[in-house]
Amino acid sequence: MSFPKVGVIGAGQLARMMAVPANDLGIDFKVFAAIPNDSAAQVANFVLGDYTNINQVLEFAKDCDVLTFEHELVPQGVIKAVEAAGIKVYPRSESFAYSQDKLEMRKKISELELPNPKWQKYKGGISEINFPLIAKLPSGGYDGRGVFVISSEAELQDLQKKTGTLLLEEKLDFDFEISVMVARSPHNQAATWPATLTIQSNGICTSTITPVPEMSDLLAEKVQAAALKIASGISLVGVMAVEMFIVGEDFYINELALRPHNSGHWSIEGSHTSQFEQHLRAILDLPLGSTAMRDDFVVMGNILGGDKSDMYRPYLHLMARTPGLKFHQYGKEVKPGRKIGHVTMCGKNLLQLQQEIAHATDYMNGVIDE
Amino acid sequence: MSFPKVGVIGAGQLARMMAVPANDLGIDFKVFAAIPNDSAAQVANFVLGDYTNINQVLEFAKDCDVLTFEHELVPQGVIKAVEAAGIKVYPRSESFAYSQDKLEMRKKISELELPNPKWQKYKGGISEINFPLIAKLPSGGYDGRGVFVISSEAELQDLQKKTGTLLLEEKLDFDFEISVMVARSPHNQAATWPATLTIQSNGICTSTITPVPEMSDLLAEKVQAAALKIASGISLVGVMAVEMFIVGEDFYINELALRPHNSGHWSIEGSHTSQFEQHLRAILDLPLGSTAMRDDFVVMGNILGGDKSDMYRPYLHLMARTPGLKFHQYGKEVKPGRKIGHVTMCGKNLLQLQQEIAHATDYMNGVIDE
Repeated sequence: MSFPKVGVIGAGQLARMMAVPANDLGIDFKVFAAIPNDSAAQVANFVLGDYTNINQVLEFAKDCDVLTFEHELVPQGVIKAVEAAGIKVYPRSESFAYSQDKLEMRKKISELELPNPKWQKYKGGISEINFPLIAKLPSGGYDGRGVFVISSEAELQDLQKKTGTLLLEEKLDFDFEISVMVARSPHNQAATWPATLTIQSNGICTSTITPVPEMSDLLAEKVQAAALKIASGISLVGVMAVEMFIVGEDFYINELALRPHNSGHWSIEGSHTSQFEQHLRAILDLPLGSTAMRDDFVVMGNILGGDKSDMYRPYLHLMARTPGLKFHQYGKEVKPGRKIGHVTMCGKNLLQLQQEIAHATDYMNGVIDE
Repeated sequence: MSFPKVGVIGAGQLARMMAVPANDLGIDFKVFAAIPNDSAAQVANFVLGDYTNINQVLEFAKDCDVLTFEHELVPQGVIKAVEAAGIKVYPRSESFAYSQDKLEMRKKISELELPNPKWQKYKGGISEINFPLIAKLPSGGYDGRGVFVISSEAELQDLQKKTGTLLLEEKLDFDFEISVMVARSPHNQAATWPATLTIQSNGICTSTITPVPEMSDLLAEKVQAAALKIASGISLVGVMAVEMFIVGEDFYINELALRPHNSGHWSIEGSHTSQFEQHLRAILDLPLGSTAMRDDFVVMGNILGGDKSDMYRPYLHLMARTPGLKFHQYGKEVKPGRKIGHVTMCGKNLLQLQQEIAHATDYMNGVIDE
């Protein structure tokens, strides 16, 4: 057998969804899990271990043609140790750093002459940025964690005592938030998908619409070009989400995530090539797949854990009501606010898609019960 | 967890492709495999055993909410033993019999007043049917095996000495062959997909086109209605392929396969609901999914084992040439003529789709090498 072997550090839903195209492409695929009940370990070959343990990761990686990650928490030291052992790791440690350290990311975006919000490293005083502002931990935050809205210098000093280094950013009065998924291979082939509108609630993405409705063609092109420029600028290999704020006809880079991302889940049904397949193609240096959309609109809704613990019985109602609705369960225990799955629907009538997705997610998490 | 558990007898590519929607729906899924390297056992939880051994099958089935099959070779005695043990098995033994015994199938189709080719059980003489005719083993044949073209009474007698019971059928001078996939649930909900043109070579399906080009709307409706009538008439639960011969504006039932079928592989990308997801929905008595097509045309090509043993390197050429091509590897060792995977492409230009699929399958199996 000449098919390569891919190892994924992490065994959450992203690794779980990556297993599908791996199997379709015949790629030998395994995940590095913490426990056998991890989302991806339920459906793929797995090895148990601790991703902060260099020796365990090296042991896992040694028979892999390529190693990759599904989260940002893997220490740089571990990634560098794998690289030093001569094993291909994508994205590379120097690229991955930009999703692990938001201060480095801000510097890089400035270097690339792409629009940042006003920002500075907090050193005991602020200039140019007015309160209220955003203070961020440079590392470790996601889904709104590690991000604080700060109204005064006193608050800021208090926060710094608790957290250490802080990145400060102006609090933009944006019109909406978008994400542009981009893929790039070692051959320098790169491709983006149409931009996605991401709708947040309490810092957590609840639903997405692709393409972004009511965005000018010019802006749609600009944000895709920006994503491609960043991908090239940080020598990305794999897929990346570039999250942006939109203000009128302007965009500002918000965050980078160097991995398949919640804002790209729509691509499973909505594009000829899903972000998960594209990630595999990119890290294996295979030609990238078509990122064309398969329908006019795709709406994705996250299923967040709520009062209901039974996620199966809702199928009876939802499948009967909406025969075109696609479900993705992550095999996770229901906990309040936890992303335990998502639903997707493709079609031509955006309003109808939004209504069906909103109904489905509300029904799954118990907000409505009929 | 309230998600049901489904067990599949058999671990070939059909079970492998069923694992994907099982995971997406959160269904607990396991396969009964002969060896750990079976196609589905590579990517899903499995138990090893012999599907002709009643005790082993009962042991496998005892914690399943529903048991199902991916091939016709499971003995009736084994299925009935599982039913007698109070475990749900779909399709039921009495339905499954129609795909296991072609004489019973012919009788049933006559009973349902649907068009059979002329047929008779061979009892040492023929009436109504002229030579050359088709002689079939009532059980165990697939991909052209167990099917013989017979030119004389002497040949027929020779064959019968070797094989025993034979079903004789007129050799129709048909225009083309089609397949209609149909699903039906215990609730009596049923759904068909548009009919598929199946293109055969030496008795093996090499490619399919969906929907059947140049078929009248009236005939397209008639064949779907016939598939629904058979599904109801044999109390089908699950999905079934109804293979038919088309002669002008007439159709004749050829074969029934009570399982996901090669002629339905197009539905993975081509329909909102794949045959594999629909089979799971049907046997779990969930509402069926939309069978609407996702594009104007879908062409599927089987990758048959040829001279090439390396199925990975062709990706470099084929992915670069055709970014919308979708690959499905079954994880099977390459043997001449063996189905080891398939490719699918969806679009609006049928001729282009056919050319790309023909190129891809020829390139994969070594017929062309550029």
